[in-house]
This record gives sequence, C-alpha cells and structure tokens, in this order.
Amino acid sequence: MERTCLAVILAAGDSTRMKSSKSKVLHDVAGRPMIAHVVDAVAATGVSSVALVVGRDAERVAKAADIGGVTVKSYIQEQRLGTGHAVLAAREAIAEGYDDILVTYGDVPLQTAGPLFEARKALAEGSDIVVIGFHTDRPTGYGRLLVKDGELIAIREEKDATDAERAVKWCNSGLMAINGRKALDLLSRIGNSNAKGEYYLTDLVEIARSLGGRVTAVDAPEVEMAGCNNRAELATIERFWQERRRHELMLSGVTMIAPETVFLCYDTVIGQDALIEPNVVFGPGAVIDGGAVIHAFSHIEGAHVSEGATVGPFARLRPGADLSIGSKVGNFCEVKNGKIGEGAKVNHLTYIGDAVIGSGTNIGAGTITCNYDGVNKFETVIGKDAFIGSNSSLVAPVTIGDSAYIASGSVITADVPDDALAFGRARQEIKPERAKLLRERALAIKAAKKAKG
Amino acid sequence: MERTCLAVILAAGDSTRMKSSKSKVLHDVAGRPMIAHVVDAVAATGVSSVALVVGRDAERVAKAADIGGVTVKSYIQEQRLGTGHAVLAAREAIAEGYDDILVTYGDVPLQTAGPLFEARKALAEGSDIVVIGFHTDRPTGYGRLLVKDGELIAIREEKDATDAERAVKWCNSGLMAINGRKALDLLSRIGNSNAKGEYYLTDLVEIARSLGGRVTAVDAPEVEMAGCNNRAELATIERFWQERRRHELMLSGVTMIAPETVFLCYDTVIGQDALIEPNVVFGPGAVIDGGAVIHAFSHIEGAHVSEGATVGPFARLRPGADLSIGSKVGNFCEVKNGKIGEGAKVNHLTYIGDAVIGSGTNIGAGTITCNYDGVNKFETVIGKDAFIGSNSSLVAPVTIGDSAYIASGSVITADVPDDALAFGRARQEIKPERAKLLRERALAIKAAKKAKG
Amino acid sequence: MERTCLAVILAAGDSTRMKSSKSKVLHDVAGRPMIAHVVDAVAATGVSSVALVVGRDAERVAKAADIGGVTVKSYIQEQRLGTGHAVLAAREAIAEGYDDILVTYGDVPLQTAGPLFEARKALAEGSDIVVIGFHTDRPTGYGRLLVKDGELIAIREEKDATDAERAVKWCNSGLMAINGRKALDLLSRIGNSNAKGEYYLTDLVEIARSLGGRVTAVDAPEVEMAGCNNRAELATIERFWQERRRHELMLSGVTMIAPETVFLCYDTVIGQDALIEPNVVFGPGAVIDGGAVIHAFSHIEGAHVSEGATVGPFARLRPGADLSIGSKVGNFCEVKNGKIGEGAKVNHLTYIGDAVIGSGTNIGAGTITCNYDGVNKFETVIGKDAFIGSNSSLVAPVTIGDSAYIASGSVITADVPDDALAFGRARQEIKPERAKLLRERALAIKAAKKAKG
Repeated sequence: MERTCLAVILAAGDSTRMKSSKSKVLHDVAGRPMIAHVVDAVAATGVSSVALVVGRDAERVAKAADIGGVTVKSYIQEQRLGTGHAVLAAREAIAEGYDDILVTYGDVPLQTAGPLFEARKALAEGSDIVVIGFHTDRPTGYGRLLVKDGELIAIREEKDATDAERAVKWCNSGLMAINGRKALDLLSRIGNSNAKGEYYLTDLVEIARSLGGRVTAVDAPEVEMAGCNNRAELATIERFWQERRRHELMLSGVTMIAPETVFLCYDTVIGQDALIEPNVVFGPGAVIDGGAVIHAFSHIEGAHVSEGATVGPFARLRPGADLSIGSKVGNFCEVKNGKIGEGAKVNHLTYIGDAVIGSGTNIGAGTITCNYDGVNKFETVIGKDAFIGSNSSLVAPVTIGDSAYIASGSVITADVPDDALAFGRARQEIKPERAKLLRERALAIKAAKKAKG
Repeated sequence: MERTCLAVILAAGDSTRMKSSKSKVLHDVAGRPMIAHVVDAVAATGVSSVALVVGRDAERVAKAADIGGVTVKSYIQEQRLGTGHAVLAAREAIAEGYDDILVTYGDVPLQTAGPLFEARKALAEGSDIVVIGFHTDRPTGYGRLLVKDGELIAIREEKDATDAERAVKWCNSGLMAINGRKALDLLSRIGNSNAKGEYYLTDLVEIARSLGGRVTAVDAPEVEMAGCNNRAELATIERFWQERRRHELMLSGVTMIAPETVFLCYDTVIGQDALIEPNVVFGPGAVIDGGAVIHAFSHIEGAHVSEGATVGPFARLRPGADLSIGSKVGNFCEVKNGKIGEGAKVNHLTYIGDAVIGSGTNIGAGTITCNYDGVNKFETVIGKDAFIGSNSSLVAPVTIGDSAYIASGSVITADVPDDALAFGRARQEIKPERAKLLRERALAIKAAKKAKG
Repeated sequence: MERTCLAVILAAGDSTRMKSSKSKVLHDVAGRPMIAHVVDAVAATGVSSVALVVGRDAERVAKAADIGGVTVKSYIQEQRLGTGHAVLAAREAIAEGYDDILVTYGDVPLQTAGPLFEARKALAEGSDIVVIGFHTDRPTGYGRLLVKDGELIAIREEKDATDAERAVKWCNSGLMAINGRKALDLLSRIGNSNAKGEYYLTDLVEIARSLGGRVTAVDAPEVEMAGCNNRAELATIERFWQERRRHELMLSGVTMIAPETVFLCYDTVIGQDALIEPNVVFGPGAVIDGGAVIHAFSHIEGAHVSEGATVGPFARLRPGADLSIGSKVGNFCEVKNGKIGEGAKVNHLTYIGDAVIGSGTNIGAGTITCNYDGVNKFETVIGKDAFIGSNSSLVAPVTIGDSAYIASGSVITADVPDDALAFGRARQEIKPERAKLLRERALAIKAAKKAKG
C-alpha cells in the first residue's frame, strides 16, 4: 500500500480488575507481553509508525512494545477521560500528517493484520471512518453496528437500542480507522456531554456523517477481537492463541497426539513430520526440526533439536541446548548451553551445562558437569565415542578425549587423553556382619528417641 | 440466624455402580472425601449439629465427616428402604427439637451454603417444606417442580408428567428443608404403597399440603446439585470443582496460563500476582504467596512458597518444604521437610530432606542429603552463603558452616566449619590406552554371549 | 455367523493433506497404526480373511496390518481411479467366493465391529448392498441416505440434493457390505462417465436396484465413522479414542481425577480401584493391577504395577519394570527391566536398569545401577531388606546380599555378602579457611575475564 499510516495503540488502561502489580498490557500471551502482539499485528499491515498511548508502567510498556521493525513512540495520557481523549494524547503524531490512522488497543492481543488491512482499504476507497466489527452470538453489552446501503449509520449502545436493533449480532470492537487528513479535525469535535463526562471515540461515526463524510464498517473474527479485563479472560485469550497456533502447525505436518496439552510460545518453530507427544511446554526460542520426536513431559526453551533427535520423556532443554541429528536427551536430564553431538546419548538423571559432547558419546546415568564454582562458569569438552561412567562428576574446565572411558562414580578434575581410562574413586571395602551392628545401633537410637520424646 | 438447625446428611448408599471397595462418599474430590465437602457446606449455613446417616464403611465415613467446627453424630441405616426411611434413621436427633431440619446427601459434594441458607430462610418465613430445585436444559429423568402462586404444588415424576409438565425445566434436586417442629410427624406419615415398596422423602410435599402446610421451593445452580453414581460422574464433579476454584483464583489476581492443567486441592492458597504455569498439581496444604512463580510440571503439597521464590519446572515439594523469599527449587529437585533460605538455590537433580539451608547458599547439581539410615531420620544444617559442590552426599546428622565450600563429588560425614573447604573424594588416576583395551574386552564378551545364545 | 466373509480395506490413499513422509494409515492412534485398529475391528466381526488394498508404503502398511488372528493379504492399487476401482484391485480375493464382502477404509480407525456386523446381518437377510450410514448435525458435504419402505433408494450427493433432501441428517460413511456371490458382477458394472472420470463405489446402490436387488442401510455412531485427512483430524480421532476408553475404564471402577490428562494406549490394562492421578501417560504394554496408585506426572510403558504399589509423582517405568505388591517408585526415578520386590522403595533420583531388588529393600536417593559398559548390559541383584545408601553406584554385574548395607556415596564393584557393610569412598578432609581463598581466587578469575573482554 502506497499510503502512509500511523497506528495509535491505546495502552493506558489501569486494569483494576486484573488485580495486578503491573499494567495489563504487560501480561504475557504465548510468552510475550500482550502489547508486543498488538504491535506485531499493526506492523504487519505496513504502518509507517506507531504511537503508543501509555499511562501506568509507561516505560516498561514502551520497552515491551519495542519489538523492532517499526518505530514506536510513546505518548503519556495523564488523565483518563475516554477513548477519544486517549487518541488525542498522540495529537503530535497525528499532526505529522498520515493518509491513514488506525486506532487499536493494547489489550486485544489476538488481532491480526487482516481486518486492519481491510479497514485501511476502505479508507483508500473513500471512507472517512471505518469501524471494525465482529459477529457474535452473545451481543449483549456491545454497541450494535447499524448499516444501511453499505454505510454504517450508527453504533447503537445496548441501552438505547430497540428490540430490532438489539437482535443485531454485528458489534463494535472499538477498533477504528480514520482518514488521516481529517483526523485531528474530527477528533477535536468529540464532546463530553454525557453521563460520565468522557470523550468517546465512537462519536466519530455521527460526527463524520454530520459533516457529509462516508462511514463504513469491516468485519473481524470474534476471537481476534477478544479483550482482556481480568485474568480469567487472559486465560481464555491464551487458549484461543494456543488453539489457533496448534491448528496451523498440525495442518503444516506436525503431529500432536494431544494438542490441548502442548503449550507453544509466540516464536516456537516446529518442522514437518515432527512428533510432539502429550504434555510438552515450549518457552521462547525453541526450534524443532522436522522429524524430531519430543516425548511427553518435556520443557524446551532457547534450544534447537535436529532431525531424528529425541527428547524426553522428562527432559529439560534450556537456552543454548543444541541436539544434533539422532542424539537423545531423556529421563530427568537437563541441558543448558550444551552441544550434544550426532547420535550422542544423555539419557538418565544428568546435568549438562556449558559443555560440548562429541558424536557417538554415551553419558552415563547421574553424570554431572560441575560447571560452576560459585562465581564463574567453566566449560566441559568431551570428544567423540567417549563413555562417561554413571554417577561421574566432571569438574570444569576439563577436557575428555575421543574414545576415552571414565569409570563409574569418578570425580574428574584433570584432562583425560584420547583412548585413556580415568578413574577417581575409592577402593571398595567390606566389613562382614557390620550391617547387623549398624541396624542394631540405629534401632537403639530410635528407642532412645522414643523414650525421650 | 437465631434459629436452631439440624442437618441430616444421607450417606448410606451402597454405590454399586462406583464398583468400589469403599463407600462412595469416601471418594475424594479436590483432595478430600466427598462427605467432608458436604459437612463443610452445611456447617457454613450455621447448623447446630449434623446427623450422618451411614451404612457401608460407617466408621470411616464418620471419621471423614469429622472436619471440626460442627458436631457430627452417626446413625446407622440398617435397611435401605428409601430416602424417607433413611432420614428417620436419625429420628433420635430430629426428636431433640430443632427449628429447621436440612436434608441433604453425601454424594452431592459441590453444594454450597447459599441454597441451603435460602431454604432455611423460607422455613423462617413460614414454609413447612422447602424443596431445593435446579434449572436444567436436560430435565429428562428428574422430577419436575410444579409451582403455583408461589407455592410448590407437586413434584411430578417423569413417568406421570403431561407433555406440558415434561417441558418444565425446574427439577427436584432431592435436597429439602423441613420445619423442625413438625418434622417427626410429617416423616412418620410417609407410606410405602408404591411399586418398589419404599419410603420416599418427596411424598412430604403432598403430605404437608394435605395438612394445610405451606410448601415452597428455592433454586440452586445445576452444577452444585450434581450427584455421583459412577466414576465418570466423579470425574465430572471434580472438573466442576476445579473450574469453579480456578476461576475464583484468577479473578482474585492469580495468573494461570492454562487453568485447565492446574489441579488445586480443597485447601490450596495462592496469593495475588502469583504465576502458575501449565501442568501444576497441588496436594493438600500448599500455600503459595503472592508474587511467587510456579513453573510447569511442579507437584506441591504441604509446602510454603514465599514471594519471589520460583519452583520448577519439574519440582517436587513435599510436606515441610518452606521456600524463603527469592529462593529457587527446580529441575528434578525434591524437597521434604526442608527450609530453603532467602535467595538459596536448589536447582538440579537434588534431594533435600530434613534440612535447613541458609540464605544465599548454592546447592550443586546432584546433591543428596542422606537423611535416613534405614531406621532413623537425621538433620542436615547448612549455613548461609555456602557452596555445595555437585554430586555431593551430605550424611546426616551433619552441619556445614557459613560460607563453607564442599568439593564436587564429596561424601561429607563430619561437620564443616565456617569458611572451610571440605572434600572427600579419591584422587583421579589415568591409564593411557586402557579404554581401548576395555572396549576390546567388552566386544569379546559380547561376541562370546552371542556365540553361546 | 456361519457365512464366510472377506473384508476389503482400502488403504491406498496418498494423503497429501497429511503432509507426511509416510502413508496416512501408518500414523498412530492410541499407540498403534490406524490400519491396525481397522483390521482389529473387522477381525472382531469374524471375517474369514482380509484383502488390503495398498499404494504408498505398501510393505510397511502390510506389516502394520498384520496383527495376528486373521489372514491379511495385500493388493496393490497401481492407479487411483476411485473407490470402485480400488475395491477391484482385490478382484482375485473377491473371486475366491465369499458370502459377504465388507468394504471399509484404513483411515477410519474408530470403527467397531458393531455396525459391520449389522451390515453382514442385513446381507444374510437378503440385501445385495448394505450401506453404513451415520447421523450428524453437520451433514453438509456428505451424501444423504434416502430411504423408502425400509430400502435405501439413493445416496444423494450434496450438489444434486433438493432442499428437503439436504435436510436429511443420515449420511453415507462410505463403508459398505456387498453380497459376495454377486460382488464381482456388480462391481464390474460401475462406470466412470462422470466429471472426474472415476469409478465410484456408491454407484452400486443404483446398479443393484436396477437389477432388482435389495439395497438397505444400517447405522453407525458418527464418532466411529470419523475419517482422517490431516493431522488436526488425526488429533480429533485420538481424542475420541481416548475419551471412549477412559470412560469405559471409569465405569469399570478405575478412578481418574482428571481423565482428560490421562493418555492410554490401545492395550493399556487397569484394574478396579486403581487410582490414576492427573498427567499420566501410558505407552504400550502397561498393566496396572487393581488398587495400585499412579501419581501425577508418571510415564509407564511395558511395565507391570501390582496391587498396593505406588508410582510417581515423576516416575518413568520402562519395559520390564515389574513392581511387586506395596512397592514404591517415585520422584524422578526410572526403572527399566527391573523387578522391585514387595514393599521395596525406589524413591528419589534413582536409575534401576537390569536389576532384581528384594522385598523390603530401600534404595537411597541418587542410586545408579551401572548396567552398561558401552557395549554390554549386566545385571545387578540386591537381596531383601538391604539398605543402599544415597548416591551409590552399583557397577554390574554385582550382587548385594540380604540385609547388607552400602554406605552413602560408595562405588560398589564387588559382591557384598549378606549382613555385610560395604563402602567405597574417600575419607573426608577439611581445610580450614580454604573456602575463603577459593572464593577470592574465583573472584579474581572473574575480574580478569571481565578485563579481557
């Protein structure tokens, strides 16, 4: 679209029903703040810049909105005198002169570019005001869109509606597009002679029409227009988001046995023919290649899983975990900043942190890379085809050579050459009949405790 | 309410469709027996005492019903001859003389005080019998409440109903309030001249009216009146309970990303601005302070989590776990009877049992407090700002001083002073080229096995 | 039924909307390929043999269909010219001469024997063609079954239907039974003079009627007729399967607190009075005896859990795990090919592989059976009433005697006699004030790192 556009995002609401210590729009949906979703949606319509109208937590909101790709400038709304007043907090931006003005809301995080784009198209075709509506089976409480001969003749509030009007199921979402060349004039005409003494953006419909302007409406899916006023609604919005994204992924060739138990993040990438079992949670930054298998009870963030690699059950991949082709991480294992080589196995009760593991290497059960001395983090490097015996402690910085062998239960503090065997454990001793004595002594202690207490 | 009240809870059903080795009312909803929920609800209406009519598992049912705060006395129903007969099993209690009698059921665990209170109010206003009804879109099978001029004129059974009556969607829940001064007389008039030869409590409607008494009905939400006849219905009741409680918590300021995956217990306490991620299960006695974060895949019972503390993913907090402000327990860690000091971290593959950990202390991956000798449990005390190296075993009773340092892989059996370094591990040895030999020997064993088998 | 029957299963679809690297019918439902479910259903109707019409992945499909109990022979459909053409790919089998021919589909995995059996019964009663229909509230797109005087007079396609016909809610599932003695003749009469130039099996209705044959229809539940064309539909089918099976188990006396979070496998067996907590995943081969308790976050496959045994939370039972009466496996423990004796406890962060543990034995936290030397697997045998101290490594092959005691943190490489105490760990040493020095040194390293860059 050749036309210039400013998106005004209203995000100054004080959200008392959220009962929150932070602004409503900072609450996450799919792992990122609501406001970032909204900026993303308006950016996708090709806006020139974004004016963010903020109140509470202004700085944090501005920071969360700064997702790159579009210029976002904040405007403080000092007083809360209605949506019309809120938009004018960005008067300076509007005055810069855009073809189109989009007005949208920071607490409507499921909106997509589609309806916004339709609204801009209607502006381009001559509308001065374009209201975005949605169809619903439960219109009660919403303003109804009354249309005649292709024009929106009014937004009728519930209380003022006739029975016939009340039966209308097309409702006002609050989102609006305004002819940018007329916007300041139109907005300045909004009055506050109403019960609450507030400036209502919806008055633009009547104002524009009274000046002979064209007012129209476009449609958006109901789900996309869902707003968030309390944490139950936040959960509903999250569910809608998850359902939408899971469905897209399944249609693209990802198998989810129980999609309702898979929790995706805004940026989760999963390739074709990947299999995601029940109960998998993705944090930000997960990339699952096609053909990978994620077993049940896995938690994955900031990690990359290659084709043919398998994760879980009960695996935790943290940022920097990078599983090569055919590798395995499962059963109560955690990997953080660790490269797992091709076909390598980390399969039982193991912590891999700040490590590089070569291809074909087997990490025994209960192995710990001791990467932290309380102050610094150090690296462990393990070659290919090595065998790390169970319950070993690898004290970083340390390097284990190719095809090296660490005996079970060893504490390894010095480098181990290729093909070498290393061990660091005490010789076993046996005291015959001593277990009996220990047990007798323990029972005596127990009896003594009982006698005392 | 100044009036005295006896609640009669019918809990003698034999529950064959439950296919259970115990009485139906002993099955848990939200972590406690159904019968306890019912006693709780009637207690909240301010009843003077509770008469529990029991049959199967009488003693266990009585014990489960004894939740404190109200006197509960059991009455055995020897034969099962209908609800009217069941209530009279508590004849002795009724004869004590109460203003109000409430009759309710042990297998209706979602009932709340509200409708019971309404029913008592109706008694106070002159009704002799008050039936508690519920509105439903699927009335088939239920008795319909027929009302005229504010009085309940009949409970019409499905089979006797005209088409018009069948269209009525207000149904009999079975719960009832009775004028306590007339109760024995009314109950004694119930006959058993019917197909099954049973005494039906619902006959009281006709009996009271025939004596010139006033009969009315009050309403209860359908969900609250759900009864339990098999384990599928038990699961449905559990779901209703969970949905109700999750919703309350969200409205109070708790964030749940996927509320349908969070399982609460009857006594779970969660403060404002706590964040509960997907897949969290609470057992009894969990207290989560405001601002705490519970990550995915956490299981918490009998534990306290302070503000700013984080739990999980994959954490198990058992009774006596007490996480101080800003502390962390995550990634395959279990804490039982353990105090985790301010800002202390227990973050990987660790078992903390019977221990006190000072503020700022870091517990390395794979640390185990060896609290059990097969007979007795002993305590581990760790000071503040200590560093426990990975894969260490702390053999209790043992005390580690402030700022002490335990080397990775150590077995600690004796106390460690403040600022001291302790280690208990063998020196590492390296055998060059020995890994090759071991591998060759292993391959030879494999070949030999194959040849044999 | 005395009559012989051939089931023709059409499984040659190329499934482009599945976006899959394998044939659609190889995708799993409840842990086994769709095609196996279909063979199971037709086998349950007592068919004599099965003709499998395959295209893509012919060999793998044939292998997956070979579930035992019935002879399955594959026929390749070289070209894809419609369902009528597909059935004739099995011409050779049909020509063997059966009383009944059932035609069904490999991508309809929820079908059960019931409706197939009804269809065969209708053949026995004189029908030449029996169409299996289903009732639905969303008939759009399906062919409607038009019935008159007990006969099916036509399957009316959506596009050809009158308004009255479009209102019909009985639809064609595609499944069909054919008089086996007339089948080849009837099938050979299907033409391809239609828009797509394909041979449609549904034409048999008109053909049979034009020859004076009797055509009827029988009903199947809508859910059972659900087909699978993309992975979202695959997930829906999986959900239907799970809901059906969970419900059956609950009615049989299994408690599931949150059935929607329990994922069963096609062969999962759970006994009466077992309790399954939320978030439990079963893989193939799990047998849970009555009265067992499976706590939350458990993953169980190929394992047996006896009465009174408890599993989880956070337990992983793999093939060959066998938990005796009253035993416990929980909190981040994994058992593979391991017998856990009566009342034995494996309770914290433990890996048991290829082991036998005697009754009453306690396995301490963090114990690892080191069963693998990188090439071979070896066995660990532990007697009864033994005590394995925490963080021990048991290097197989090794035998620990009855009532033996292993000190915490030991590496055990040699057998331990009954009643003996064994240890293999270094003596603890303490370096006073050394922790301070270490910390200072670490801070210096940190500072140096920072200075560098």
